[in-house]
Amino acid sequence: MGNADFEIHQVEIPPSKPFLHTLKSTLKETFFPDDPFKQFKHQPFSRKFVLGLQYFVPILEWAPRYTFELFKADFIAGITIASLAVPQGISYAGLASLPPIIGLYSSFVPPLIYAMLGSSKDLAVGTVAVPSLLITSMLGKEVNPHENTKLYVQLVFTATFFAGVFQASLGLLRLGFIVDFLSHATIVGFMGGAATVVCLQQLKGILGLVHFTHEADLISVLKSVFTQINLWRWESGVLGCCFLFFLFITRYFSKKKPVFFWINALAPLTSVILGSVLVYLTHAEKHGVEIIGHLKKGLNPQSLSELEMTFRSEHLIIAIKTGIITGVIALAEGIAVGRSFAIFKNYHIDGNKEMIAFGVMNIAGSCTSCYLTTGPFSRTAVNFNAGCKTAVSNIVMATAVMITLLFLTPLFHYTPIVVLSAIIMAAMIILIDYEAAIQLWAVDKFDFVVCISAYIGVVFGSVETGLVIAVAISLLRVLLFVARPKTSVMGSIPNSMTYRSTEQYPKATIVPGILILQINSPIYFANASYLRERISRWIDEEENELRCSAKTDLQYVILDMSAVASIDTSGISMIEEVKKIIDRRCMKLVLANPGGEVMKKLDKSKFIDKIGQEWLYLTVGEAVKACNFILHTCRTKAKGVESEAADDKV
Amino acid sequence: MGNADFEIHQVEIPPSKPFLHTLKSTLKETFFPDDPFKQFKHQPFSRKFVLGLQYFVPILEWAPRYTFELFKADFIAGITIASLAVPQGISYAGLASLPPIIGLYSSFVPPLIYAMLGSSKDLAVGTVAVPSLLITSMLGKEVNPHENTKLYVQLVFTATFFAGVFQASLGLLRLGFIVDFLSHATIVGFMGGAATVVCLQQLKGILGLVHFTHEADLISVLKSVFTQINLWRWESGVLGCCFLFFLFITRYFSKKKPVFFWINALAPLTSVILGSVLVYLTHAEKHGVEIIGHLKKGLNPQSLSELEMTFRSEHLIIAIKTGIITGVIALAEGIAVGRSFAIFKNYHIDGNKEMIAFGVMNIAGSCTSCYLTTGPFSRTAVNFNAGCKTAVSNIVMATAVMITLLFLTPLFHYTPIVVLSAIIMAAMIILIDYEAAIQLWAVDKFDFVVCISAYIGVVFGSVETGLVIAVAISLLRVLLFVARPKTSVMGSIPNSMTYRSTEQYPKATIVPGILILQINSPIYFANASYLRERISRWIDEEENELRCSAKTDLQYVILDMSAVASIDTSGISMIEEVKKIIDRRCMKLVLANPGGEVMKKLDKSKFIDKIGQEWLYLTVGEAVKACNFILHTCRTKAKGVESEAADDKV
Repeated sequence: MGNADFEIHQVEIPPSKPFLHTLKSTLKETFFPDDPFKQFKHQPFSRKFVLGLQYFVPILEWAPRYTFELFKADFIAGITIASLAVPQGISYAGLASLPPIIGLYSSFVPPLIYAMLGSSKDLAVGTVAVPSLLITSMLGKEVNPHENTKLYVQLVFTATFFAGVFQASLGLLRLGFIVDFLSHATIVGFMGGAATVVCLQQLKGILGLVHFTHEADLISVLKSVFTQINLWRWESGVLGCCFLFFLFITRYFSKKKPVFFWINALAPLTSVILGSVLVYLTHAEKHGVEIIGHLKKGLNPQSLSELEMTFRSEHLIIAIKTGIITGVIALAEGIAVGRSFAIFKNYHIDGNKEMIAFGVMNIAGSCTSCYLTTGPFSRTAVNFNAGCKTAVSNIVMATAVMITLLFLTPLFHYTPIVVLSAIIMAAMIILIDYEAAIQLWAVDKFDFVVCISAYIGVVFGSVETGLVIAVAISLLRVLLFVARPKTSVMGSIPNSMTYRSTEQYPKATIVPGILILQINSPIYFANASYLRERISRWIDEEENELRCSAKTDLQYVILDMSAVASIDTSGISMIEEVKKIIDRRCMKLVLANPGGEVMKKLDKSKFIDKIGQEWLYLTVGEAVKACNFILHTCRTKAKGVESEAADDKV
Repeated sequence: MGNADFEIHQVEIPPSKPFLHTLKSTLKETFFPDDPFKQFKHQPFSRKFVLGLQYFVPILEWAPRYTFELFKADFIAGITIASLAVPQGISYAGLASLPPIIGLYSSFVPPLIYAMLGSSKDLAVGTVAVPSLLITSMLGKEVNPHENTKLYVQLVFTATFFAGVFQASLGLLRLGFIVDFLSHATIVGFMGGAATVVCLQQLKGILGLVHFTHEADLISVLKSVFTQINLWRWESGVLGCCFLFFLFITRYFSKKKPVFFWINALAPLTSVILGSVLVYLTHAEKHGVEIIGHLKKGLNPQSLSELEMTFRSEHLIIAIKTGIITGVIALAEGIAVGRSFAIFKNYHIDGNKEMIAFGVMNIAGSCTSCYLTTGPFSRTAVNFNAGCKTAVSNIVMATAVMITLLFLTPLFHYTPIVVLSAIIMAAMIILIDYEAAIQLWAVDKFDFVVCISAYIGVVFGSVETGLVIAVAISLLRVLLFVARPKTSVMGSIPNSMTYRSTEQYPKATIVPGILILQINSPIYFANASYLRERISRWIDEEENELRCSAKTDLQYVILDMSAVASIDTSGISMIEEVKKIIDRRCMKLVLANPGGEVMKKLDKSKFIDKIGQEWLYLTVGEAVKACNFILHTCRTKAKGVESEAADDKV
């Protein structure tokens, strides 16, 4: 090709590296993509020790720089989230079929631990609705929470312990990317479904029903509600609707004027106080309005002995299973929330470090009568709005809850359950993010299917079913992408040396006699035979078209490999077979822009020798130029000379 | 950007198509990548009917053109494969713990069916070793084949029936691509492992052992062999070694001179005849050499009643499971074999049509006392070497087997089992393809791991274990590819407008002040957060480097999207977040060459409006030129004017 009047750039094989070096860098990229060791480099040992300690206990890093100014902001934020923590804690404990006091306990110890270990400045720790519901639906099948409360509570602590162990190990083993497999669409659908289910469950409290199904799916709940119409209590219903209205109206005001965020933040506590006073004055507890009743005074009792007992019981397996599933979901929510606010304030949080913090917080929680906690969206948003600066706001909240536990629990004696139901319902309804689902439909139909499947799975099946279906469909999408990659014919963009898909650029013109195909995925076993068939079909179609229009014959097939980031041995066999097919039709296979990994493997498998280095080009443009050059030379020469020249080239 | 002195090409959004149209073409590409309807277009109804019939029964298409010339070739090939079919049929039936006669039956009906329905011209139908072994190992656990032969045989027929149903449905539902998930590496390792296990099993026959383990793994078999050293029969052992030597020497000759392929092809039948004569003359059956014994004369009895009985028994589930697993494996072998020879002879076979043919052949087989058949490699290779032209060679083979069944079965009375063991061993040893494994190591380490895992799984675990492990690792690779895509910095190739990864082209030079990053996979939920972190890290590293060298600041980050074939909503959020991160550092995000699907989704999600159409470029080259142009203009202008100009641009 030396006689061409244009410059040809060679396609290079990347410099080969020793196997162990490649393995090391692959493992590093897989497990340490954030390069946490960077800061440890070239440091004396003592400094390394301090940095290591600061890595695992971030408070050591920022506490020395903490000022009174910051504390003022954190104090206000802490008090605000405490006012939310008390009613929410009690409500969600009910959702998990636990005694209300455990909800309060869970807002005391875990926030203290997180303040020391967490790397987010905005996250407010607390219990969350969906894992609470999951705990009821998974453990409630094994042990009836109302008949065998003691054992059930033990199981919940054990599940929390394993959730913590699982979360911490994910962080320590650098497997944080497992959480990434819950896609945005999955989470929208899943949360929406869970919120629907939780809202439906609240009909029990609002309608004052005593017996209620233990199933969480739509059909069982509606059946349970409508077969007991004669047992509905109107007193409870009216109270519930009033408080729901109150909560919605305060939210509406806060939304209109963001300065009044505290109206919304204080609304739950106000509802609890109003409801309790109302019940106390009217003695409504004697007229069908259920109340919380006696709450024990005092701080969290230890629960190590409870853990120990379950370790030896036959329920251990279900506790571990519940722990792992709820742990992953809690983690996904907590990390997503932490990350969102970090991006907002432009600082960085480390997913793996967060997992360790969540894990330790739940392990410690499970030993001190707390159940699963994470960073709930609602509480964190209030914390952020209230102007928190560091994790100290969590310490302030914990202190406020501690004071409540020590002195104020009797005040909650008359709090009506219906108010708690209204608080949960109001919090859940905003999670049914139908706007996001519409947006998914507009942007990406497949994501919409994932979202709707998760929703339907949760609402009509169970929370786990929805999750499994959504993750399976999401993974199927990845596999389908690889199994059926897009190929397209490329044409020349007018006034340029650039070639692009004619599908995207309808004005791009086909080069006569040359078929340029773009392959848009790695070539793996899963798509090798599809691609072979598809390329053959492209060639057939192109030949038929050329035959009909009686133009030149098809002489070259150029495969644009720009988007082929990787290839395996099945892929290499496929290219070899394609070359055979093309050779047999008396055409020439040309590869344009094969990447580093592809070149390495083509070289090792001796394919480059087979095809000849001169049929590899850096760009499609150069490949087309070279092909056209040969075509042109051949046509101008006599027939006999032509075949000789072709022999030379081949 | 109109004042630039070079031409900028616009990135286009592909013309939007109605949703149903896109859905239809996606479904077509997924399930009908070979476009089988093409020939039906614009045809009258009667012609469509004929074409449809010919589609499902290919013999109707080629039979009218069949000539006596072709028949002569097919006749010779048919007789040759028949001479292989008889001993192999008997041997593999033994491997499946079935009475030897069923192996002969299986070489009669299925080849006839395949000749009518199959689209391969070279495939010779017969039983195969690995699925035979699988049948023993799966069904043998449920029912002891020696103690309860009748029930066991019933179960095998039922499994064959379900294998057929499964194969045919895969074909009818156009799900043939499931077979593609068995990668080349998986098959090398799996076949090698299965061959090892089968060889070890033959030690029973060669050493003349009566009791033998039912397990198939290495450890059980070796234990079984070496705990019975005192029961080894030297007569049997000597005979076995002699025949093994004979078979290897004939293969060696055939390999040296391909014209003598028939020596190798006839060797098994010769061994059987020699062995039988030897035993008959020496009465070796009385000295520890086991023989086949009485074989019933006559053609296949029907076995519908047997099928019916298992349908009502409690063993149905295991029969279905065995059927599906053996069916997939048989299919994978048959299709791979058919495809290899089709490529060799340059004709096309249709995977889905083949599946239907295999399925119908096994359903029909299961009703006529045959067990699972497919297109074995060894027999097909002999058929090909013997010069077969069409599937008529299968009919010839079936006729020869029929004659054997009708008249010649008594001749096999004295055939020693040890000869059959030697035939299996000789056939299996070539399947242990250690050279392919070495090649895998050289070309692709990951494929090597898949291969070795399959091998170890089969040899030390079970056949199913090996298969499941290998498929799981293969899929993990695809997921890992998507979860941890490669990103690399691009530089300018000297003397060109082209930009390439500096890793592959070390001589490519970095453009000062501009960071160009290549993303090498679709952006999906599974890699969105990894990519965000990784891009931030690239920017940090580049900034640090620039700061050290005190050159210009980093001003632009160009993402080359050429290889991003697809994006989902999580991916779009990721790009939005990356834009925020880059904006906050006072840099500019530029996208180069976003593809059709990416452009569509960026448009629908309003991201194009956010970033501005002027920051999208057709090539990296144009993007760099534009950025450099702005940088240059800004530097030459006064400071005050500079900010104004920048404002204009943004």
